[in-house]
Amino acid sequence: MQSPRPSKRAPDEMRPVALERGVAKHAEGSCLVKFGDTHVLCTASLEEKVPPWLRGGGRGWVTAEYGMLPRATHERTRREASAGKQSGRTQEIQRLIGRSLRAVVDLEALGERQISIDCDVIQADGGTRTASITGAWVALHDCIEWMKGRNMLTRPVLVDHIAAISVGISHGVPVLDLDYAEDSKAETDANFVITGSGGIVEVQGTAEGKPFSRDEFLSLLDLAEAGVKRLVELQKMAIL
Amino acid sequence: MQSPRPSKRAPDEMRPVALERGVAKHAEGSCLVKFGDTHVLCTASLEEKVPPWLRGGGRGWVTAEYGMLPRATHERTRREASAGKQSGRTQEIQRLIGRSLRAVVDLEALGERQISIDCDVIQADGGTRTASITGAWVALHDCIEWMKGRNMLTRPVLVDHIAAISVGISHGVPVLDLDYAEDSKAETDANFVITGSGGIVEVQGTAEGKPFSRDEFLSLLDLAEAGVKRLVELQKMAIL
Amino acid sequence: MQSPRPSKRAPDEMRPVALERGVAKHAEGSCLVKFGDTHVLCTASLEEKVPPWLRGGGRGWVTAEYGMLPRATHERTRREASAGKQSGRTQEIQRLIGRSLRAVVDLEALGERQISIDCDVIQADGGTRTASITGAWVALHDCIEWMKGRNMLTRPVLVDHIAAISVGISHGVPVLDLDYAEDSKAETDANFVITGSGGIVEVQGTAEGKPFSRDEFLSLLDLAEAGVKRLVELQKMAIL
Amino acid sequence: MQSPRPSKRAPDEMRPVALERGVAKHAEGSCLVKFGDTHVLCTASLEEKVPPWLRGGGRGWVTAEYGMLPRATHERTRREASAGKQSGRTQEIQRLIGRSLRAVVDLEALGERQISIDCDVIQADGGTRTASITGAWVALHDCIEWMKGRNMLTRPVLVDHIAAISVGISHGVPVLDLDYAEDSKAETDANFVITGSGGIVEVQGTAEGKPFSRDEFLSLLDLAEAGVKRLVELQKMAIL
Amino acid sequence: MQSPRPSKRAPDEMRPVALERGVAKHAEGSCLVKFGDTHVLCTASLEEKVPPWLRGGGRGWVTAEYGMLPRATHERTRREASAGKQSGRTQEIQRLIGRSLRAVVDLEALGERQISIDCDVIQADGGTRTASITGAWVALHDCIEWMKGRNMLTRPVLVDHIAAISVGISHGVPVLDLDYAEDSKAETDANFVITGSGGIVEVQGTAEGKPFSRDEFLSLLDLAEAGVKRLVELQKMAIL
Amino acid sequence: MQSPRPSKRAPDEMRPVALERGVAKHAEGSCLVKFGDTHVLCTASLEEKVPPWLRGGGRGWVTAEYGMLPRATHERTRREASAGKQSGRTQEIQRLIGRSLRAVVDLEALGERQISIDCDVIQADGGTRTASITGAWVALHDCIEWMKGRNMLTRPVLVDHIAAISVGISHGVPVLDLDYAEDSKAETDANFVITGSGGIVEVQGTAEGKPFSRDEFLSLLDLAEAGVKRLVELQKMAIL
Repeated sequence: MQSPRPSKRAPDEMRPVALERGVAKHAEGSCLVKFGDTHVLCTASLEEKVPPWLRGGGRGWVTAEYGMLPRATHERTRREASAGKQSGRTQEIQRLIGRSLRAVVDLEALGERQISIDCDVIQADGGTRTASITGAWVALHDCIEWMKGRNMLTRPVLVDHIAAISVGISHGVPVLDLDYAEDSKAETDANFVITGSGGIVEVQGTAEGKPFSRDEFLSLLDLAEAGVKRLVELQKMAIL
Repeated sequence: MQSPRPSKRAPDEMRPVALERGVAKHAEGSCLVKFGDTHVLCTASLEEKVPPWLRGGGRGWVTAEYGMLPRATHERTRREASAGKQSGRTQEIQRLIGRSLRAVVDLEALGERQISIDCDVIQADGGTRTASITGAWVALHDCIEWMKGRNMLTRPVLVDHIAAISVGISHGVPVLDLDYAEDSKAETDANFVITGSGGIVEVQGTAEGKPFSRDEFLSLLDLAEAGVKRLVELQKMAIL
Repeated sequence: MQSPRPSKRAPDEMRPVALERGVAKHAEGSCLVKFGDTHVLCTASLEEKVPPWLRGGGRGWVTAEYGMLPRATHERTRREASAGKQSGRTQEIQRLIGRSLRAVVDLEALGERQISIDCDVIQADGGTRTASITGAWVALHDCIEWMKGRNMLTRPVLVDHIAAISVGISHGVPVLDLDYAEDSKAETDANFVITGSGGIVEVQGTAEGKPFSRDEFLSLLDLAEAGVKRLVELQKMAIL
Repeated sequence: MQSPRPSKRAPDEMRPVALERGVAKHAEGSCLVKFGDTHVLCTASLEEKVPPWLRGGGRGWVTAEYGMLPRATHERTRREASAGKQSGRTQEIQRLIGRSLRAVVDLEALGERQISIDCDVIQADGGTRTASITGAWVALHDCIEWMKGRNMLTRPVLVDHIAAISVGISHGVPVLDLDYAEDSKAETDANFVITGSGGIVEVQGTAEGKPFSRDEFLSLLDLAEAGVKRLVELQKMAIL
Repeated sequence: MQSPRPSKRAPDEMRPVALERGVAKHAEGSCLVKFGDTHVLCTASLEEKVPPWLRGGGRGWVTAEYGMLPRATHERTRREASAGKQSGRTQEIQRLIGRSLRAVVDLEALGERQISIDCDVIQADGGTRTASITGAWVALHDCIEWMKGRNMLTRPVLVDHIAAISVGISHGVPVLDLDYAEDSKAETDANFVITGSGGIVEVQGTAEGKPFSRDEFLSLLDLAEAGVKRLVELQKMAIL
Repeated sequence: MQSPRPSKRAPDEMRPVALERGVAKHAEGSCLVKFGDTHVLCTASLEEKVPPWLRGGGRGWVTAEYGMLPRATHERTRREASAGKQSGRTQEIQRLIGRSLRAVVDLEALGERQISIDCDVIQADGGTRTASITGAWVALHDCIEWMKGRNMLTRPVLVDHIAAISVGISHGVPVLDLDYAEDSKAETDANFVITGSGGIVEVQGTAEGKPFSRDEFLSLLDLAEAGVKRLVELQKMAIL
């Protein structure tokens, strides 16, 4: 039977994933992540100061910003710097990336420092937030290795892997890792952020068309767990 | 055994909920919703025009804005109009309210008109987004009744109820409808938006502390389904 | 003879006024003030810091912010937080409220602290600035009582009452406390802010149509003095 | 007896006033107005379009903008263009100038056109808003003469003179036309905008220190009426 | 003799230059340009509309925007979208890129359409504006080829090549194509934009330290002319 | 032969230049500069603090801001304070003025203080940036004299004169000091900033129409050098 997916992938088949490290000359850690035609450049920047509300507490912080080049998309979108503000979508995504990464960081072990993760979408084809989280973990990992190499840390900072994947129901079938063509028509669309040890950190599910049932939701969770497991394996290979 | 909750409620016990209709003299529909000490004024405003990207297509739109009075919270927060922009949190919430309501509206039946829902938090004690969605449905319902009374509609616009509730894991126990004291310390915090017929429209779950498991997530879903069922009953009584 | 006023009130008759205290759970002082269908929620928030230009001088400050819910008015108005700035009218009103309150506060007795008054119009039917000042005084009073109850003050801070009322010339007749229908058509429109002991603190008079004479202005002042006298009596009853 | 005023002027003595016409090469009307060391450049710009809410109605509009060069004041103030917004004070003043001028303009006779008045303070020494209104009338007059010279008007547009002056109570004495040194210490400060035929168009009085009485207010009005009478004479001489 | 340059390059030696076409899946034209470690992604986006001031005139427009990823630089710089505005430097550069490209485009032959060039610096090591112009020409070329392939054009649009290079005086020696280490210490720094036929389109020279002489300026021009000649050869090879 | 210039000036003839000192009562230094009908008010304001990145280093700073009154131009332009931001052109010009002045200031001799130069165009007829630089030098000079008079300086701060002039190619002829009518039609337009001792500090040349050659550029430089020489003489006379 032929796949009902525009990409002809099997329902549980992800796009080819690549995690290329060390792509940014200046950053303490960096990773160019590709989920098929979705390409995101993730950098980790170490700063020796924390936000005002953390000062003097001995704890560090991990934050994230997200952006998209104007012509990363099919139609050119307006440059946010020129529009004078970040859209609600951008803010929602960068808050999600930051929360996801902090779930696997021991902020006390980091000490009073901030790591800023920048995720910039060079080319978009669906799943930019999940690719961002997956690649950001690698950039964060390399930034922490950079610190270890300078004896800046006394105990482990990164306590687990974290990765994310999108799932959805398309033509009634639960599918893994939606590309743009599929995402824009799916009845339901969800993103899962899951740790290397299988704990769920974030779930965001939205019925774009008709509401979904508990059973449908569980089949999406099954797909996502398998997908993240694979992504974590790829992260492990990437940092070897 | 005594309840572990700060409010002494049973794990599956919601706060007292009130839905007061017709509280805004000028609006086509309005509802003051109270989930305990969380009070949100929801108004529905009918406008005979749609956003540019919908013009001429015969379909209508439902959108939402969310705000909080500066002293709705324990500490005064800065007025967003004075700060010159809406926070990422505000934008995230108002996008959620709009999506949730649109899930139960037949936009073609509405015709080329926009209904703007304003949810303004008069007093906050946790769960402002879930109270907003639940009250907004009542305001939206009354706006549509107002239109029916003027023969502006030829077929049903509102196809189902929709309501939302927060759930969380607090001291290891799944609990329903978190207030601020509980929410700020919960290990996991999730919001479910569910229709009157039980379909899931939005799921947002976040592990604030340690990641959660599939089983924990399912017990949260159980609580939420029961909670929304109760909220929908209250909506039905309110619009009698 | 029948009244020429849309509301059928006598020329020197105010709308029913209500001053409800303690309506905001978190605020140090609060008052929901109603001048007929104009409803304003006033809160007083105590902060243990002053603006930069007052630091270290031992004196305190009282400031005010004003806002209006989008559907407080007959037609929905754009949310200022979404527009990205406060209108000139909003800034003019909040500066007036702040100046008026400071006229009856001993800022040295307050000590190096700031009280922020928020006046949020829940429903508008003309006279929102005068209702705001009148209700704000009650919220301020309760905030100062709250401080007294905690032994934070060593001498009186609030040295007098202050209240405000609008007056105007409508169809050639001087009238008191204009509602929206009257205000939008009045030839002249003035606001007076007057203390409990009868001193004038602010006068703002504008000829919307033809200019007014000295005698007309004096008859407006007469009306306003009587109106504020009544408002101060109501404030006294409210704080009993 | 010596004058108690810092400037040694008599209580009812204005500063030297100059109204220089035609100072801006490009503008349809212009006037450099000086009230002593307060210098304001007023220009009138004719545009063949009106604001959206007036389109198609056949009526015109007169609007005003106000600005101050950064070093017009004793200490340099931040450039509003650089700060990214106009202050509340700026907006309040430009709204006042616009309202005042419109009080003596027949907007229907103007036709569907807008005259924009720009009042830019080159040097400030108190009374910038009253000098602006007084000089703006001359610029407006010349713009209308320019239109007459091109047969653009069929009936009179400017129906009266308008001018403005500040008054105050300083060391208990009512005084006319306060300069900065006096204004910053006056107990009461008021601005009157009055027409050539003596009608009051705007009154703004503020007690900076203790509240003022009805009698004090009347003595301020006396001073202002005499002052405006003199300013109108100077306007008449200027446009000869 | 050893080169005095940090990079050990000869004074008239450019960094390795690469021009990679077709790097952006969605854009009508694109080029990843590298001048050594300076990498800029240039895309050309065709839009079937022109700015308001050109509408109806039959002429087209070419415009440019410039941005830099936050960690393109040695220290992370603040994201302009988050800061809420583009810096003066950014605006200066994007105006320069737009002017330079328009110098070799026949805007009437383009027809009433706009081509937007986005130059986004992925990695910065000096010379980002000159690399941007050089790469933007290639993206623009490919966009115009794309149009030709769809029979959208009836006569040549691109009338010449254009490229740009930086030159400077470093330790008293005129040098070509400064990298960051050299640029930040050069006494004089200039950018030349020159066409394929050798005409000068833009000159920008700045003495960072001591002023420069006419002779020094001429030796810089010599270097730049040779550099641009080489860049134009590379453009020709790239588009074969 | 008659001059081809709209103004009938000879190709190497400047407009009448005036440099009037001490025109701003409050500023430490000021100059009203006129290049024909282009009038710019330049003020120098001394502040006893430096930008954050210079604090504690013992060096001072000279910065500049540029503005234009809305009706300085033939058509009224929108007020930047009302638009909410400075245009790219404004920022480009004020950065140029600041850089030019700093080229002749010994920032260490200035000590840890900032001099802010404000250049406000009262009337525009081409060449506002060159007039600004030329007049700003006089304002800066007087500010430094003011400091000397108060024994605030121990060694010379101003090390040379600096002035600027525009040149261009109009109808094929190189011309000096373009006015608006000429500037808007010139094929090439360049600005030179040159010191009293003849060193070049800034060159900005743009081909508006066809590119220019090296020889054309050199003839422009010749004109500019003669022009600046004359401007420096006028500065010397002005400060006698």
